[in-house]
Amino acid sequence: MRVYADNAATTKMSKVAADVMMEAIENGYGNPSSSYSLGRDARIALERARTKTAKALGAKPEEIFFTSGGTESNNWAIKSAANKRGGHMVSTRVEHPSVLNCLRYLEDLGIAVTYLGVDQSGRVSPDELRDAIRKDTLLVTVMTANNEVGTIQPIQAMTDITREHEIIFHTDAVQAAGHIPVDVKAFGVDMLSISGHKFGGPRGIGALYVRKGLKLPPLLHGGDQENGARSGTENTPGICAMAAALEDSVSSLRENADKVAQMRDRLIDGILKIPGTRPTGDREMRLPGIASFAFDGIDGERLVRALDETGICASSSAACSSGGGNISHVLTAMGLPDEVIRGSLRLSINEINTDGEIDYILKKLPGIVKNLRDL
Amino acid sequence: MRVYADNAATTKMSKVAADVMMEAIENGYGNPSSSYSLGRDARIALERARTKTAKALGAKPEEIFFTSGGTESNNWAIKSAANKRGGHMVSTRVEHPSVLNCLRYLEDLGIAVTYLGVDQSGRVSPDELRDAIRKDTLLVTVMTANNEVGTIQPIQAMTDITREHEIIFHTDAVQAAGHIPVDVKAFGVDMLSISGHKFGGPRGIGALYVRKGLKLPPLLHGGDQENGARSGTENTPGICAMAAALEDSVSSLRENADKVAQMRDRLIDGILKIPGTRPTGDREMRLPGIASFAFDGIDGERLVRALDETGICASSSAACSSGGGNISHVLTAMGLPDEVIRGSLRLSINEINTDGEIDYILKKLPGIVKNLRDL
Repeated sequence: MRVYADNAATTKMSKVAADVMMEAIENGYGNPSSSYSLGRDARIALERARTKTAKALGAKPEEIFFTSGGTESNNWAIKSAANKRGGHMVSTRVEHPSVLNCLRYLEDLGIAVTYLGVDQSGRVSPDELRDAIRKDTLLVTVMTANNEVGTIQPIQAMTDITREHEIIFHTDAVQAAGHIPVDVKAFGVDMLSISGHKFGGPRGIGALYVRKGLKLPPLLHGGDQENGARSGTENTPGICAMAAALEDSVSSLRENADKVAQMRDRLIDGILKIPGTRPTGDREMRLPGIASFAFDGIDGERLVRALDETGICASSSAACSSGGGNISHVLTAMGLPDEVIRGSLRLSINEINTDGEIDYILKKLPGIVKNLRDL
Repeated sequence: MRVYADNAATTKMSKVAADVMMEAIENGYGNPSSSYSLGRDARIALERARTKTAKALGAKPEEIFFTSGGTESNNWAIKSAANKRGGHMVSTRVEHPSVLNCLRYLEDLGIAVTYLGVDQSGRVSPDELRDAIRKDTLLVTVMTANNEVGTIQPIQAMTDITREHEIIFHTDAVQAAGHIPVDVKAFGVDMLSISGHKFGGPRGIGALYVRKGLKLPPLLHGGDQENGARSGTENTPGICAMAAALEDSVSSLRENADKVAQMRDRLIDGILKIPGTRPTGDREMRLPGIASFAFDGIDGERLVRALDETGICASSSAACSSGGGNISHVLTAMGLPDEVIRGSLRLSINEINTDGEIDYILKKLPGIVKNLRDL
């Protein structure tokens, strides 16, 4: 039996998305910049995908720009806000590496950055954001929901503050889109990043929402695709597949979120019965699909490998850094000591998972934890 | 009947590549950074694709970095060479917009750029390159083969010069790879860009060869994938499909090139019989798949639309700029007057095209040209 419970790292592409992609590869292979019918048809498909994506996020089609993924979207949003000499940005200590490493790069170029701390559950305080704002603050970037512990941030309360000061607000919604309601207008954000492969779309494709009126300098220069903002032949099959996956996720969002949250809560309740286990993240304000823990006296990476032997795919700290063996910056920011962080586990599920799979995890995990402790 | 003769804009994905991609989507969907078996398998597939890609280009696996396409590869190569204040670069007047617009961006930042001219056939002179080199020259970037007229540049003769001066040489081989022999060692280049969708691979994926010993600062910061050089979850299905397409193209290169060049020559010989037609580009040093012309007294865009009505997909000037209605910078650099350039046509074929399709084009085109002239 294989139980894939690492959907926050990447999802299996949904059938809807895969079908759309193969259809575009087989029949819609024209270059959208070409003027013959095959090219014009590709252009129409591309613009339909843009409209779908916009609708799913509460945006206008002309506010959606397709990129190669969440990393490019975050790089583009953050680096383009720094187009002046000096200045200041505000972010948090729990962002994804694609945000943190952009900010570190900008720090080297002379931008000052304030990294807000978080409470035990991983939440940022809007009051601390208010205190951090300076006269020269160019950008505030705070993720919608965390990839390691699933904690959802109070985005709206923060944009209420930045709007007063006319500061640009970007949110990395890569983990949130398709899983919880993400509406750029309700959020009040100026820029928002999404990534196709986190909600059943393909790898290598993402989008950046840019509020109308805000004009970003390009990160990639070239043939002036995407209205001059992002060059490169449009990946129409990938774009159409991502849009189909997002539309599909959003149309069943409530239903899926309820089902997934129920499975997640069953995981959490069951796993917390294992002695020496603590929950990480926020019990209420969390993504429906992420259950996260720390086990006393266990090495998380060994736990992941032991789970793998029973067919369960899970992760210890973020997938992006799991190769590196670094201690999670997210759990550190939440105040957990290193020896607790070492025993961290993330199970991330979605609507494809089943109750039977949850049962299987709950059946296998206690014994595995015990065995590892007994070693 | 549909005759797709715009393969220089984009190719239809080959069956080999599409099969590899769907297999990876269905079964190889793990994140290569994950430590369970599904992730490790994805890592193995990724590294196999890197080895294949390297082999096809005469490079070492650790010299291949996957990107989102030719545009990103060119942006990364060119912008990272400019990491100092000021300095000088050399390029040509016939490069792709993804090279030219990077250089213009760098000019705004204070980099001086010399754009070498070309002769009537679109060839750059190595002697002119030698004269253009300055003490502060950081980079020379010259395309391997041109996208509008197929002219192949004397890369080796140019790298002989830059090597003497220890200047980094980058070539945009997007049109060349998979169609003519491309070997980084024989070429003597330091960096080389390729794009999957120009040789039957997918859209949204490309690679940059970076000679061992040369270390580029990242263009995209984040989770430190690609050995820290290019962040973002690896698009394993796209990467594996591109590698399969490249391997397939290179393994049949001689055979395909002969077949395609024969069809191309038949096109050229046949079309030149139409009165008031001139060939563009170089008759000998040209890509096997590109036939290009200028018709007196005709608007190329109207010609493309009239061809479309008979099912023939072709282009007038580069696909990347064909939406914009600009006059081709390539044909201008080759000394053609605007009224001739207006009547330009590019037919770009590959091994999927058939002799019957060539017959069809040769049968239809004369009448269409005559009709447009009689209007």
